Amino acid sequence: MKNPPALEQLIESLRCLPGVGPKSALRMAYHLLQRDRNGANSLALSLENALQALGHCTLCNNFSEISICPLCTSEKREPSQLCVVEMPTDLMMMEQTHSYNGMYFVLMGRLSPLDGIGPKEINLDKLIKRAQDDIVTEVILATNYTVEGEATAHYISELLKTRGIAVSRIARGLPMGGEIEYVDSGTLSQALLERRSV
Amino acid sequence: MKNPPALEQLIESLRCLPGVGPKSALRMAYHLLQRDRNGANSLALSLENALQALGHCTLCNNFSEISICPLCTSEKREPSQLCVVEMPTDLMMMEQTHSYNGMYFVLMGRLSPLDGIGPKEINLDKLIKRAQDDIVTEVILATNYTVEGEATAHYISELLKTRGIAVSRIARGLPMGGEIEYVDSGTLSQALLERRSV
Repeated sequence: MKNPPALEQLIESLRCLPGVGPKSALRMAYHLLQRDRNGANSLALSLENALQALGHCTLCNNFSEISICPLCTSEKREPSQLCVVEMPTDLMMMEQTHSYNGMYFVLMGRLSPLDGIGPKEINLDKLIKRAQDDIVTEVILATNYTVEGEATAHYISELLKTRGIAVSRIARGLPMGGEIEYVDSGTLSQALLERRSV
Repeated sequence: MKNPPALEQLIESLRCLPGVGPKSALRMAYHLLQRDRNGANSLALSLENALQALGHCTLCNNFSEISICPLCTSEKREPSQLCVVEMPTDLMMMEQTHSYNGMYFVLMGRLSPLDGIGPKEINLDKLIKRAQDDIVTEVILATNYTVEGEATAHYISELLKTRGIAVSRIARGLPMGGEIEYVDSGTLSQALLERRSV
């Protein structure tokens, strides 16, 4: 007793989603076919539409339906600062702080050799070219403070510094409301090292 | 700063999958667009194909690409027994035991009033009609031993018994390798109640 081919194929295709194994894929397929055919249809259409419509902004590399995204064409932004983030969500978090008004570059990932993600996959060529437009005076590295994010920041800073571009890295230290008693020692030692005069 | 419309729409559509919230949907959308465009494309095609090709077998109500599925047309099956299961996976588990050779009826769910799933949603009309084909002599209820599965079995048995159809329920008791010390008391009391002479 086997599933009909169209069902097997759907289950197999659902497994391309991250975090979805055989059991989840089966559950999803049953749910879509039995309880939410409209949802399944709109998912198919959205996928096709997104694949067709979405490319990358030629300047900031974020997802965009047009060749240069609204943020990059905005005249209200300061063009001399370029903030490098890993993912579009990071860009949105930066925007929510309302304390940065420069431009962005979205890597769409982080260096991760074990996952086969090297300099080419995170568009470093494009970043180097973008940073050398003679308007950018400072590149701010806002990758995560994880091992991979740190490695990515280090790699990028080496690349840019040899080209004479000023590079900075967002500060590490105690978080807002952080108590010294409960913070990890790595963060604390870095906060001590990066102390500033008041 | 907002996502492009095509991306927002994809994120929204992915949320129709069971167990997928806003964060997972975002992660899935980024993954598909950035790392697996082929997978996204084949998912869209599989969804469309499944929606178009898959219906339900008119006899057993299982997913099928043809109006009567291969199992229902098989001449090797015993047509006088009809086993009622909740989902297609349950049918497959039953088949794997190699100890049942009758026909099936797949409810595609279980009674669950809180989720808006009543007798109509689990195709009980179709089951009643199927059970009254004058060939079926016994209906075996193989719904789960959960609260909802039990309620479903009870409801179906009442419906069928008033129509003079013999109904049975799969046994409850200690599982294979089960030790009395570790089994829950509900199972043990039922195993005692349903003891059989040896």
